Amino acid sequence: MTRLWNEPADFADEMVDGFVRANGRWVRKVHGGVSRSTRSASPEVAVVIGGGSGHYPAFAGLVGPGLAHGAAMGNLFASPSAHQVESVIRASEQGKGVLLSYGNYAGDVLHFTEAQETVRKEGVDCRTVTVTDDIFSAKPDEKQKRRGIAGDLTVFKAAGAAAASGYDIDGVERIAKLANERTRSMGVAFTGCTLPGADEPLFSVPEGRMAVGLGIHGEPGIDETDIPTADGLAELFVEHLLADGEIPEGVTVDGARVVPVLNGLGSVKSEELFVVFSRVADLLEEKGITLVDPQVGEFCTSFDMAGASLTLFWVDEELEKLWNAPTDTPAFRSGSFDSSDLETVDASEDEEADAVIPDASDDSKHAASRIAAALDAVRVTIDENAEELGRIDSIAGDGDHGIGMQRGSRAAAEEAAAVAEKGAGAATLLSRAADAWSDRAGGTSGALWGVILRTLGEKLGDTEQPSAETVSAGITAAKDAVMSYGKAKVGDKTMVDSLVPFADTLAERVAAGDALLDAWNAATTAAKGAADKTADLMPGMGRARSHGEKALGVPDPGAVSLAMIAETVGGVLADK
Amino acid sequence: MTRLWNEPADFADEMVDGFVRANGRWVRKVHGGVSRSTRSASPEVAVVIGGGSGHYPAFAGLVGPGLAHGAAMGNLFASPSAHQVESVIRASEQGKGVLLSYGNYAGDVLHFTEAQETVRKEGVDCRTVTVTDDIFSAKPDEKQKRRGIAGDLTVFKAAGAAAASGYDIDGVERIAKLANERTRSMGVAFTGCTLPGADEPLFSVPEGRMAVGLGIHGEPGIDETDIPTADGLAELFVEHLLADGEIPEGVTVDGARVVPVLNGLGSVKSEELFVVFSRVADLLEEKGITLVDPQVGEFCTSFDMAGASLTLFWVDEELEKLWNAPTDTPAFRSGSFDSSDLETVDASEDEEADAVIPDASDDSKHAASRIAAALDAVRVTIDENAEELGRIDSIAGDGDHGIGMQRGSRAAAEEAAAVAEKGAGAATLLSRAADAWSDRAGGTSGALWGVILRTLGEKLGDTEQPSAETVSAGITAAKDAVMSYGKAKVGDKTMVDSLVPFADTLAERVAAGDALLDAWNAATTAAKGAADKTADLMPGMGRARSHGEKALGVPDPGAVSLAMIAETVGGVLADK
Repeated sequence: MTRLWNEPADFADEMVDGFVRANGRWVRKVHGGVSRSTRSASPEVAVVIGGGSGHYPAFAGLVGPGLAHGAAMGNLFASPSAHQVESVIRASEQGKGVLLSYGNYAGDVLHFTEAQETVRKEGVDCRTVTVTDDIFSAKPDEKQKRRGIAGDLTVFKAAGAAAASGYDIDGVERIAKLANERTRSMGVAFTGCTLPGADEPLFSVPEGRMAVGLGIHGEPGIDETDIPTADGLAELFVEHLLADGEIPEGVTVDGARVVPVLNGLGSVKSEELFVVFSRVADLLEEKGITLVDPQVGEFCTSFDMAGASLTLFWVDEELEKLWNAPTDTPAFRSGSFDSSDLETVDASEDEEADAVIPDASDDSKHAASRIAAALDAVRVTIDENAEELGRIDSIAGDGDHGIGMQRGSRAAAEEAAAVAEKGAGAATLLSRAADAWSDRAGGTSGALWGVILRTLGEKLGDTEQPSAETVSAGITAAKDAVMSYGKAKVGDKTMVDSLVPFADTLAERVAAGDALLDAWNAATTAAKGAADKTADLMPGMGRARSHGEKALGVPDPGAVSLAMIAETVGGVLADK
Repeated sequence: MTRLWNEPADFADEMVDGFVRANGRWVRKVHGGVSRSTRSASPEVAVVIGGGSGHYPAFAGLVGPGLAHGAAMGNLFASPSAHQVESVIRASEQGKGVLLSYGNYAGDVLHFTEAQETVRKEGVDCRTVTVTDDIFSAKPDEKQKRRGIAGDLTVFKAAGAAAASGYDIDGVERIAKLANERTRSMGVAFTGCTLPGADEPLFSVPEGRMAVGLGIHGEPGIDETDIPTADGLAELFVEHLLADGEIPEGVTVDGARVVPVLNGLGSVKSEELFVVFSRVADLLEEKGITLVDPQVGEFCTSFDMAGASLTLFWVDEELEKLWNAPTDTPAFRSGSFDSSDLETVDASEDEEADAVIPDASDDSKHAASRIAAALDAVRVTIDENAEELGRIDSIAGDGDHGIGMQRGSRAAAEEAAAVAEKGAGAATLLSRAADAWSDRAGGTSGALWGVILRTLGEKLGDTEQPSAETVSAGITAAKDAVMSYGKAKVGDKTMVDSLVPFADTLAERVAAGDALLDAWNAATTAAKGAADKTADLMPGMGRARSHGEKALGVPDPGAVSLAMIAETVGGVLADK
């Protein structure tokens, strides 16, 4: 149960603010997350990590000398946007290349990969190693599909230590891959967790029961049992982690050296973990394993979830040396870090991203001010309907659609008003609003709304007077981009279900010679009808599967909110 | 809710074992707790801390270079015994004197003071500074009565840094006093916590409500309100901590330098604390206060209790320097600690405490083996009745009387059997059994049973054949010692209520010429009657007060278990 917040929508931002104020010795706030506040005298490969918030000390608590150089911080349990990741990369890279490392989750992969592509175009040698340590999230022969949990720590630490030791980007990438291959974890959970402002837990486990393999965002586990004794849990952990297929290539158990990381997910306390660890240590030593620098505590949490995981990091000589190298971050410190050659980063060096407003024609400026008015109307509509959208979403998903749309539409409307004031054209305004929306909304729907606004803007440009044809072409392009980005098709119970009929009807009617307003209204009617029909579909993506039964009979919140926005914009168009 | 344990009675021991195995770089296990596993080349004043377990990282997590030298670790929420404290002092002191520092709780004061007296007799210059930072536990003009909470950290850190910097015992004591005077905390709680094996929380707070000033063991607070926003909590904290009477002498708020410590009690997570901290930082800075090295995390927990506290440590130049000095402990690390001049302690140096069994007469050896049999019978009786004793205790107290008596009687029986085997006389056997009981049972009742067995043993000696007269004299002396130690009198609803009639009847009947068995049985009858009558009394001590109403009609568990033990021993006496 989370109890302390102000506005739930502001929680993640205020959290970052407090974190940075408490830890200014290590980090500075940059757009999209944090970057180190110091830099070593000789440039290093930059290790940029990140993911959703709610997992402290992952990820921001692991930024500092000897570990990561920056962390992109998404909203609670939501990936940072590509724009946020890019910004953290820019603030952190030192001309020696960048390694992106993060847990293997679809949303994170989407956004980090997009950011990687963008900075590569600018000449940054950017590589990626995702963490895939959770042995219950896929079979050993599909290890690359596994999710990342507390093994994040060992992979990030090995990569960060390699960077600090002067390895080049090839070397840092090699070490991160090796560390990931040699890191295996398994987790159990006794309760779910409740996000700020939510009335109910995001997911739950029956009282007295233990979900084996439950993911840190509530992804389904593989089994449910009664809660065992502390010794019983230790035995379960060790049995599975020493099973066939989980011993990394080239490792012989008897005589191996292992860093064990016993991680509490939030409400399991240190005292309990020490009792479990006492038996874990026995069991590993009985197998002839030497324990290296054991870690017992919180390394990757899931808010106040009660649960624990055990990670085994099978070190070779090189990995052990890197593991033992000194580290100095807000939440993880080891050895004696010699800080004498650190320089403080001048925060004014951080790019004033997008400070310049490109020139625009008066026609486009006029169009931009009408788009800003439309975005403001959208903000009002979403504010009024946020609760209902959240309610619908909570049946099949994680219940954050309303709050995400609210954060996104507010941020987009504010940014649009500010840049319209400065004389932005339609493309610039939409691009800025797109970044604001996806940065603040977080999650996949935030990213998709960013894609829609940005793609539409590209078609409108900063010089032409938008016409029915350019608007329709922009919406069609946005539809294509969303489908390509999210890999969803009609019938998957997503936003695509109403976006496709909207874009197609708009294109047909404009081609048939309708005025924009008429065509738009016809398209809106099609989108609303299609959104209603999503109630008859089974959800087709992600973890919503496990809620499939309950979700039947409930429309898709993304499809509903798209139709709602279309109708609102139609009202502004009519308001000529 | 605690979920992971094996035998609840073994929890604390297994916890220490796991802690030491995970943290051998810093600590070694010694009787009664932990002591550093390294020593600096030049001897230092030893800072010995401690208290009940369940508050990790307090206390064992704070042992290491730059901080404490040893921690005496009691059972869950129960003071360590004097014998345990002594043992940790002996393992930690380096000939330069010892500073004892711990939170100001009656049980801890009792045991640490007894240990201090013992080691002083041996020539150790031992001083004490108790931590009294909790502003809601007594008015400002009675600051010395206040309890210690998360302010433990700042006092221990200042003292440990002073010791590491070469201060002598006078200097370390002065610094600890100054740091305590300049440390003020206030806490709130949203839920209670549940100890291993307990069915119900030790105490509770109504859902959605916040207990203001609730102590870390559930000591009553001063107010109850709805849970405020994060900003609201920050404002409450700062308002009370900057109130009249809470600004330390010689400090002017505007321009002051303060180390803020925002502490989570267990289930309030880092993300929430950062949101609160963001506002705390604003409020303090608005008053002209400069923040020094802020700490946000868990420093003194209360198992899985949901709650938080804010500590302000008002530093002067000397205290700030000591605060910033490098530290390297399992749970608190700062700066770069130069470990090059550390030597590993040879654990075999630890005294083989009490390894030698003094010579005894055959008569006394015979008596000792019968006492060992009686202690084994007591163990069986207590095992059978532990649940019921716990149930009675849970009505007025913390419900751990059954488990404490179980741990104590088991340990005493085991130790008695072992030393009887080695040819111990009655006094040696009882003294060893006394230490085992009080060490393992923890709490006040454990300490009192230790007093009873030890005092009786002193009267019986290792040479004489015990007689009705010496037994009776021993029991009377034990009664006197218990009353002097626990400061309780008849009618206070404690063990004394049945101990006094037992001892008095035994003395009368022996003086009247009865055989020991007859006198013992008569005394047992008196004790049982008196124990039953405690049901009519209101509890008279400690935090039981707050449960007074519920406790009426329920006998005192300490009085009941004493009568139960008397009856069991009578059975063994009859079994000649």
